[in-house]
Amino acid sequence: MFEPSERGQEYREKLLSFMDEYVYPAESVYHEQMVTSGDVNHHPQVLEDLKAEARDRGLWNLFHPHKEWGPGLSNLDYAHLAEVMGRSIELAPEATNCNAPDTGNMEVLTLFGTDEHKEKWLKPLLDGKIASAFAMTEPAVASSDATNIETQMVADGDEYVINGRKWWTSNALHKNCKVLIVMGKTDPSAEKHRQQSMMVVPLDTPGVKVVRGLPVFGYQDREGHAEVIFEDVRVPKSALLAGEGDGFMISQARLGPGRIHHCMRAIGVAERALDLMIDRAQSRVTFGQPIANRSNIQDWIAESRMEIEMARLLTLKAAYLMDTVGNKGARTEISAIKVVAPNVALKVIDRAIQVHGGGGVSDDFPLAKMYAHMRTLRLADGPDEVHKMTIARQELRRRDANWGKKS
Amino acid sequence: MFEPSERGQEYREKLLSFMDEYVYPAESVYHEQMVTSGDVNHHPQVLEDLKAEARDRGLWNLFHPHKEWGPGLSNLDYAHLAEVMGRSIELAPEATNCNAPDTGNMEVLTLFGTDEHKEKWLKPLLDGKIASAFAMTEPAVASSDATNIETQMVADGDEYVINGRKWWTSNALHKNCKVLIVMGKTDPSAEKHRQQSMMVVPLDTPGVKVVRGLPVFGYQDREGHAEVIFEDVRVPKSALLAGEGDGFMISQARLGPGRIHHCMRAIGVAERALDLMIDRAQSRVTFGQPIANRSNIQDWIAESRMEIEMARLLTLKAAYLMDTVGNKGARTEISAIKVVAPNVALKVIDRAIQVHGGGGVSDDFPLAKMYAHMRTLRLADGPDEVHKMTIARQELRRRDANWGKKS
Amino acid sequence: MFEPSERGQEYREKLLSFMDEYVYPAESVYHEQMVTSGDVNHHPQVLEDLKAEARDRGLWNLFHPHKEWGPGLSNLDYAHLAEVMGRSIELAPEATNCNAPDTGNMEVLTLFGTDEHKEKWLKPLLDGKIASAFAMTEPAVASSDATNIETQMVADGDEYVINGRKWWTSNALHKNCKVLIVMGKTDPSAEKHRQQSMMVVPLDTPGVKVVRGLPVFGYQDREGHAEVIFEDVRVPKSALLAGEGDGFMISQARLGPGRIHHCMRAIGVAERALDLMIDRAQSRVTFGQPIANRSNIQDWIAESRMEIEMARLLTLKAAYLMDTVGNKGARTEISAIKVVAPNVALKVIDRAIQVHGGGGVSDDFPLAKMYAHMRTLRLADGPDEVHKMTIARQELRRRDANWGKKS
Amino acid sequence: MFEPSERGQEYREKLLSFMDEYVYPAESVYHEQMVTSGDVNHHPQVLEDLKAEARDRGLWNLFHPHKEWGPGLSNLDYAHLAEVMGRSIELAPEATNCNAPDTGNMEVLTLFGTDEHKEKWLKPLLDGKIASAFAMTEPAVASSDATNIETQMVADGDEYVINGRKWWTSNALHKNCKVLIVMGKTDPSAEKHRQQSMMVVPLDTPGVKVVRGLPVFGYQDREGHAEVIFEDVRVPKSALLAGEGDGFMISQARLGPGRIHHCMRAIGVAERALDLMIDRAQSRVTFGQPIANRSNIQDWIAESRMEIEMARLLTLKAAYLMDTVGNKGARTEISAIKVVAPNVALKVIDRAIQVHGGGGVSDDFPLAKMYAHMRTLRLADGPDEVHKMTIARQELRRRDANWGKKS
Repeated sequence: MFEPSERGQEYREKLLSFMDEYVYPAESVYHEQMVTSGDVNHHPQVLEDLKAEARDRGLWNLFHPHKEWGPGLSNLDYAHLAEVMGRSIELAPEATNCNAPDTGNMEVLTLFGTDEHKEKWLKPLLDGKIASAFAMTEPAVASSDATNIETQMVADGDEYVINGRKWWTSNALHKNCKVLIVMGKTDPSAEKHRQQSMMVVPLDTPGVKVVRGLPVFGYQDREGHAEVIFEDVRVPKSALLAGEGDGFMISQARLGPGRIHHCMRAIGVAERALDLMIDRAQSRVTFGQPIANRSNIQDWIAESRMEIEMARLLTLKAAYLMDTVGNKGARTEISAIKVVAPNVALKVIDRAIQVHGGGGVSDDFPLAKMYAHMRTLRLADGPDEVHKMTIARQELRRRDANWGKKS
Repeated sequence: MFEPSERGQEYREKLLSFMDEYVYPAESVYHEQMVTSGDVNHHPQVLEDLKAEARDRGLWNLFHPHKEWGPGLSNLDYAHLAEVMGRSIELAPEATNCNAPDTGNMEVLTLFGTDEHKEKWLKPLLDGKIASAFAMTEPAVASSDATNIETQMVADGDEYVINGRKWWTSNALHKNCKVLIVMGKTDPSAEKHRQQSMMVVPLDTPGVKVVRGLPVFGYQDREGHAEVIFEDVRVPKSALLAGEGDGFMISQARLGPGRIHHCMRAIGVAERALDLMIDRAQSRVTFGQPIANRSNIQDWIAESRMEIEMARLLTLKAAYLMDTVGNKGARTEISAIKVVAPNVALKVIDRAIQVHGGGGVSDDFPLAKMYAHMRTLRLADGPDEVHKMTIARQELRRRDANWGKKS
Repeated sequence: MFEPSERGQEYREKLLSFMDEYVYPAESVYHEQMVTSGDVNHHPQVLEDLKAEARDRGLWNLFHPHKEWGPGLSNLDYAHLAEVMGRSIELAPEATNCNAPDTGNMEVLTLFGTDEHKEKWLKPLLDGKIASAFAMTEPAVASSDATNIETQMVADGDEYVINGRKWWTSNALHKNCKVLIVMGKTDPSAEKHRQQSMMVVPLDTPGVKVVRGLPVFGYQDREGHAEVIFEDVRVPKSALLAGEGDGFMISQARLGPGRIHHCMRAIGVAERALDLMIDRAQSRVTFGQPIANRSNIQDWIAESRMEIEMARLLTLKAAYLMDTVGNKGARTEISAIKVVAPNVALKVIDRAIQVHGGGGVSDDFPLAKMYAHMRTLRLADGPDEVHKMTIARQELRRRDANWGKKS
Repeated sequence: MFEPSERGQEYREKLLSFMDEYVYPAESVYHEQMVTSGDVNHHPQVLEDLKAEARDRGLWNLFHPHKEWGPGLSNLDYAHLAEVMGRSIELAPEATNCNAPDTGNMEVLTLFGTDEHKEKWLKPLLDGKIASAFAMTEPAVASSDATNIETQMVADGDEYVINGRKWWTSNALHKNCKVLIVMGKTDPSAEKHRQQSMMVVPLDTPGVKVVRGLPVFGYQDREGHAEVIFEDVRVPKSALLAGEGDGFMISQARLGPGRIHHCMRAIGVAERALDLMIDRAQSRVTFGQPIANRSNIQDWIAESRMEIEMARLLTLKAAYLMDTVGNKGARTEISAIKVVAPNVALKVIDRAIQVHGGGGVSDDFPLAKMYAHMRTLRLADGPDEVHKMTIARQELRRRDANWGKKS
């Protein structure tokens, strides 16, 4: 059943109350504050109000697996919470200080940061005082093959000198953003998976230039997906996370939990879209009856329910496996949910748009924006095709070991 | 995780050994005995040998939920076994006396049969000495709407007189078939769901005529899907199961577990097809390399793995819900798996056929027959569309109760 | 072959040269002028330059079927030109004065306008001096059922008084927009299809309020899709097009050619997306080879080619039928292309986005905007489902007339 | 419009009358004669009756492009006839002596046969007195790569000695079959496409052994798809068609027209299935109304109509291109229809099966058999994937020649 533990269930109920009492009612306030500001990257007051309330209620840093820094929930327990947050995806994750990429950055700093990193960056992040970005993807090379990365990190005395161009550096335009974790190459001559390193780079370091925010479809997300140039950026050697050459390893470590978070939020998004579809179908009348009476619309509703439920079970299984047998044992599942969850969400949202007519593609409903957001998830962190390749290889290996044997 | 209980796991391991040691090796023997016999409804010796071995190993009547008659496994525990049986679907279910529709009939006789029914039919069924059929679907009316049934059961003194025409009466051509459970109408003027009754009718009752076996995509299945005419068939009043008007209720009771069985076997079939696809893809060379190297074939393998895994989780969840909250609480899931499992199996088998080339549609591989069998499951026990309608209604009801509320 | 006539072919070649020499090179200029202006509804100089050049080359009002006003090409001949224009959809249609909804409005004014309408509005439209909008869809009712319209047009002495709310009034935010054609009800008690009338309403008439431009997936299109309120808007009786109650008839008349234009442009969009996909696939390298070498990407290319070609043939057939047997005889085809063309374009664009990675959803490539635009076409002018219903009814009627006959 | 020529249209009308008056009424007779015979390869009298009638009516050898031997219709004209024949696919093609593989064999003998071949085999084939088979595909190697063929044809004095194993040799079990055209390798050391030769081999030549008929799904087709062993089969050197090493060239020559025939027949099959679906949907009642009233069924009908129409247009275009620019210029289209037509037919048939319920998978309707037949077309003459590869390569080449150019 992949049900949450008793403790997880308590958090879930507290979160549901918070959603009902604060988050959903805040949605219209949020949009008004954003529009009024005239600034797509505005940080609206309502978010800070929600954060204060969430913290008061103990709904804070829920994601953090280490008891020292958060409730220390299992991946499975947190997965259930991430789904709930996904139902109001512009507000709930940030309100509870569970927003990507801050979550991944906080995990990385917890695991691989120095004491100085923790004091200077981790603590204010955990306090929700600052935001952070993660600079990995590059415009010049296919991100589906992580070893492609071209950003250089050259040692020079006590410092590294960083040169390169990144994009899709999410959060870099957040008003509170203060620091980046940057992936680059310290040793291009090393073994393929030991060339990369990760470093902590304050956003105001000379040579760091946020060139622009990339739109997603036509949306400029509040937190921003930035193109960032690093031009002779000098950081002390202490900027290094773990050791030289550990960049790939760190990226693998942050990957598993992040997948669960993204996918469960995507399922929350899909649930929200399904509810919108049903409500619209019940209220919209054509040719004398609500369109919810039509069997093609009913088929869409049923298919959406089936697809969402299956994607949820698979994601919960991946979380459970990570908790019990670790990332390696969950390899197929972690790849699979990355393909399944966004695609299911897209299907459901697209049907919901169709049921909404012209309103569906506009901003009178959140559907078009949901669609744009979910569409990027089929590319971010590797396109579908790379994950399918991973799964296929596992299957081929499985049969190789059982050649000729019947199932 | 929907894992089997410890006891379930023990049975699973015993069953896996039996499959490896006896069932898979028997497949070629089976086909030879069938071909040699020249009779599509032949009952080959190898099946009796397998039954004897299974019984010796305690792998007998595994489906039966009542401790008195079988191991009394939960639906969840048995689901795992049904999947394994599905991997050799022509042999394993019958070898373990877990074959439909005998399983459903045995459950119905256990729950609703008289002592006489139990003595005369249930015992030899549980012993694997006889087989039985279930006569419900009628050629003249859509079976998607069960209240359509036209077969008449008219009381006449101490007897009922049955008149009607049934088809898809599976097992009626089995060499061991001795008895039918028949659905008909005792009171066409009663409330819609109280018009139907079920009766136990020996196959050799005068007036019962097995007209023909219906082919499925050209295949005459061994057990037969018969068209049966009932012409002034007289049975004593004691033939009635439960009471007059209880027919619909009984059909609902047998429905849940049967769905789980069918769907888990379908998943076993899909797993077998995936293995065949992979093995063929690794061994078949075109343009200088095995086709398993091609990314489109790898996509098929990955998609098959994802789809199978999701269908399995959903079916296991349905089983778990039946065990914990009962048929009603599992309503959406029981409808959903009926749509999902056969469709997933068909997709996987179709890809496997494509990878096998001409061999795939012939009888050199089991794929075409698997396809034909799975295709009928999209119709048997109600077409996909009826189950989607059920799911959609549940969803509409759910939202009605939460009108305007955000998710 | 649905090839253009000799004259059509000459126009096509002239248009292709114009595209190569002027339009494609103008694309980057256009985007720069738009961005620099800081106004999403800016009317950039480059467009006026293109218009001047097109007119010089005799590539002007190509759509107009009446020799008096344009080249008088057949629907089939113009279809080929519309496809070419679709390849640079933000520039080419307007550069040649073939932009929707001006085209439909010009046709309507030609057929149903008074001499005054023609002098005052048609001539400057044909001259490309002004732009016009078409106000039909309403937010409060489903546009899939045109008889739903609620805008009132009440006679009052020599005037009509218009009250209502429209949206998706495209072009209303165009800097040159001067006039609207408005659909409303003059007689709600008349027979269902005689309640509506159409009127010519200058944009600056008191009471006409352009409330806002509706975004499409975050994009504010230059011409604008406006929400417009009509509050006690008074127009003289001469504003009426044709007679009272002719509104539905006029909307049907404009419908056929407009469909061809939209669908052929959609096919041009799809061709552009396919070229982008191929070029990217050839230049992007992962795991040591261009992704164009991978068989899954090759499958996408092949499927795109097949789907585009079939959609094109169907649309050309619809155009040919309109030319030869008229709108009624082309009924099924006119409905079919409305479903097929946007859906094919969306499939091709989505694949192209996937091949482009993160760039695909941003504005570095035109793909995301293409997607947003094409997605609206599944809703504008009736959702897919309404057109499928029309086709199905034709089929049911066809068989009714041949009941029992074999094909 | 791809309409037939006037002469083609006359043939079409004559054929339609023949279908209505003779062929459709013969279907039930045919099935009865087949069942009564108890021999799946029985040659029923009704076929000979139909042949006599067709010949009387001048509907004979309609396929043959050479005036000397047939009406000499263009590919486009004949395409329209092939579609009509497809509507009764078990009778019409053979009744008019237009059955595959006889058609291809007759073309090959016409083009490449010696005078002796023509006298001995071509004439009786054209007279419908004998039947013939084509032995190309081999069980041991992937037929998607024609150069794989392993059958040896070794020169020995005045003879060739043939050794090999073929399967899917269609027609070899036809009661009238007298001769095979066999593909093999005369020179395995030659350039890849010059290793193969084709030879005319009488079926009764010593060493030719028809091992078995391959079932398609569960069907044993009347004409048979045989596995044939060639064991030291000796034929005179005059058995050679064209020259040594011309085998691949001949296979290419027969390929184009054969594709058109197969695909147009597939479209005829799809039309028949659509009619069956509609008729059933109108007559079958569930929950108080015919299922044709339900919008999901209407969607299926509309989608079927759209898909069939597009597949037809594409196939007609391929035929037209073959007539006007030849096989090479029609390369993409000839590959495309091979993918499109069977897949469309399968989709339509599958929907029709679903609408028919249990009857759909049985033999009470022709749908299951249609499905089995169409499914083989996705494999015969190369699987879908090979044809997509061909199309993709053409597209890649097209863009290579226009690198960087906008469309």
